[in-house]
Amino acid sequence: MKVSLATRVGDLAEEQIVAILRQAYPAGEHPTEVENDDAAVITVTPGLRLVTSSDMLIEHEDFVFPEFSAYDVGWKTAAVNLSDIGAMGAQPTGLVMALGLGHDATVADLIGYARGVRDAVNELAPQVSIWGGDLSHARLFTSQATSYGEVAEPVTRGGALLGDVVAYAGLLGFAAAGLRILMGERTDDPDLRGLERTGAIQHAVDAQLRPHPPVSLGARAAAYGAHSLIDVSDGLARDAARIAAASDVTLDFVSGALAGRCADLGWTRHTLGVDPWELVMAGGEDFGLLGTFAADAALPEGFEAVGTVIERGEHGVLLSGRPTEYLGFDHFRHS
Amino acid sequence: MKVSLATRVGDLAEEQIVAILRQAYPAGEHPTEVENDDAAVITVTPGLRLVTSSDMLIEHEDFVFPEFSAYDVGWKTAAVNLSDIGAMGAQPTGLVMALGLGHDATVADLIGYARGVRDAVNELAPQVSIWGGDLSHARLFTSQATSYGEVAEPVTRGGALLGDVVAYAGLLGFAAAGLRILMGERTDDPDLRGLERTGAIQHAVDAQLRPHPPVSLGARAAAYGAHSLIDVSDGLARDAARIAAASDVTLDFVSGALAGRCADLGWTRHTLGVDPWELVMAGGEDFGLLGTFAADAALPEGFEAVGTVIERGEHGVLLSGRPTEYLGFDHFRHS
Repeated sequence: MKVSLATRVGDLAEEQIVAILRQAYPAGEHPTEVENDDAAVITVTPGLRLVTSSDMLIEHEDFVFPEFSAYDVGWKTAAVNLSDIGAMGAQPTGLVMALGLGHDATVADLIGYARGVRDAVNELAPQVSIWGGDLSHARLFTSQATSYGEVAEPVTRGGALLGDVVAYAGLLGFAAAGLRILMGERTDDPDLRGLERTGAIQHAVDAQLRPHPPVSLGARAAAYGAHSLIDVSDGLARDAARIAAASDVTLDFVSGALAGRCADLGWTRHTLGVDPWELVMAGGEDFGLLGTFAADAALPEGFEAVGTVIERGEHGVLLSGRPTEYLGFDHFRHS
Repeated sequence: MKVSLATRVGDLAEEQIVAILRQAYPAGEHPTEVENDDAAVITVTPGLRLVTSSDMLIEHEDFVFPEFSAYDVGWKTAAVNLSDIGAMGAQPTGLVMALGLGHDATVADLIGYARGVRDAVNELAPQVSIWGGDLSHARLFTSQATSYGEVAEPVTRGGALLGDVVAYAGLLGFAAAGLRILMGERTDDPDLRGLERTGAIQHAVDAQLRPHPPVSLGARAAAYGAHSLIDVSDGLARDAARIAAASDVTLDFVSGALAGRCADLGWTRHTLGVDPWELVMAGGEDFGLLGTFAADAALPEGFEAVGTVIERGEHGVLLSGRPTEYLGFDHFRHS
């Protein structure tokens, strides 16, 4: 049978599907010692420790077609998994991908997905190799990855110290704005239906479809002596609360330091009917890095001071000394 | 709010769900250095190499409710992932679990799932620890795990040598028979509807719901100098063909050596209308270990000689010198 871009996955043998994926995946700098066996074999650089994380994206929950393309799903799966490695202060080395897809998926979908993975790796962590994967049939497109990295001393959530500077690297609120635009179009919101995808609007949609976590800044933050580090997936306030809880401190954000980021999202008040502060404090999925550094230390380029670490009070997170109502996203609460 | 076994996941915060899972998970002998952070931190024993694998089970594809319970899904997810580590000749050390479930899942489901994971670990690889996980909302119950293990020298699919003894450890065909029973009942097959679940029939159903891969025999096979090793997930002939292809040899099974296993499944001819040879040669999901050993080497206890490695011919797999039509299961082919 001749295989074309329109060939359906249901007409291919598993080996053919794997071959199509492997061809498009990056080789990277850290090949596994054993390929295409029951498990990947990893060498850890002597003196360094291995970190590993796992994230799964499921159709209808984490993305929808056609707003997302298979390319976007591949990109985002790689990006969110690499982000978790950077957030330990580690250098990513490899990914193991698991993909579930239906008989009706096409060769074009497969290639699109694999290229999304490849391009995200090339842009965010070009040293990373794909170490293998698992292929399943699924009614819903299901994309999972396990990520690996190396670090001398991991930077955890629990190391923030009194007097630390709180610093952030990456976008804030754009991915959440992009999600509202995409969902508004899906529900045929008349205000969003005719929106021209220019400038900030396209930027926000792109941030949702293809986030750019500052993965390499994780290892740089570690080199600059970061005391604590986390990637912001569920909203700035919510992830800051995780550092606060693990470190038994309070993080006090300076509203003036975040005002510029709100100004950048000023258009959302009129266009989306949403408070830019809510996007900045509670919007998730930008996957920027939130860390704390000694007050007298230099911040690595890319990080911006946004607050200070103070003694643990009633609230783990404050905005210019006052409690904030923006508690961010919880996957499971649906009230 | 008071949390009971009937409390729905949609009424819990993510942290509560994670706490319920963690309480039920095993601690094992290999704790991660950092818990509850962006990524798990693993120490690899100096001189050993790390192996890692990933397998995903999705509702409607890999299992159905109520034939499977949440406990069974947890058990099977752990079992199939540990099996891949054993199949490298390695000793499993840890698991990272990812779970997707709907708002309507209950606390009883969560606890059942976690206990299934725990019991499989305790029975198959008690030294294993749970190193973390990822929780998603999903319309379909989706259970994924990444498994980790250590080995001095991995045993791959590609090491089979001319003259090797082909040996197998574990059940053959029972899980496939169990699947037919469960699916037959689901489709209201009158012949299967009234089947009493006694003896061999219950044994087959159990093999499907809660497979017992001989995980620890993997490291033992390595210690006995196994040349090649694979776990049989897609059928004996199909997985044997993988060793044959990777090693550029042919595996010739001795029908007499497998006849006893067919006799054990003799009841399936009448009860299920299926040829026992098809179950033995092409039935998957028993997750036994298929390996090749030097002809003059002792076989580790638990392994049984079932064939020999001969020069590569037209077919990678033979049954007493003749081609076999049993090519086994392919996830994607639906013709």
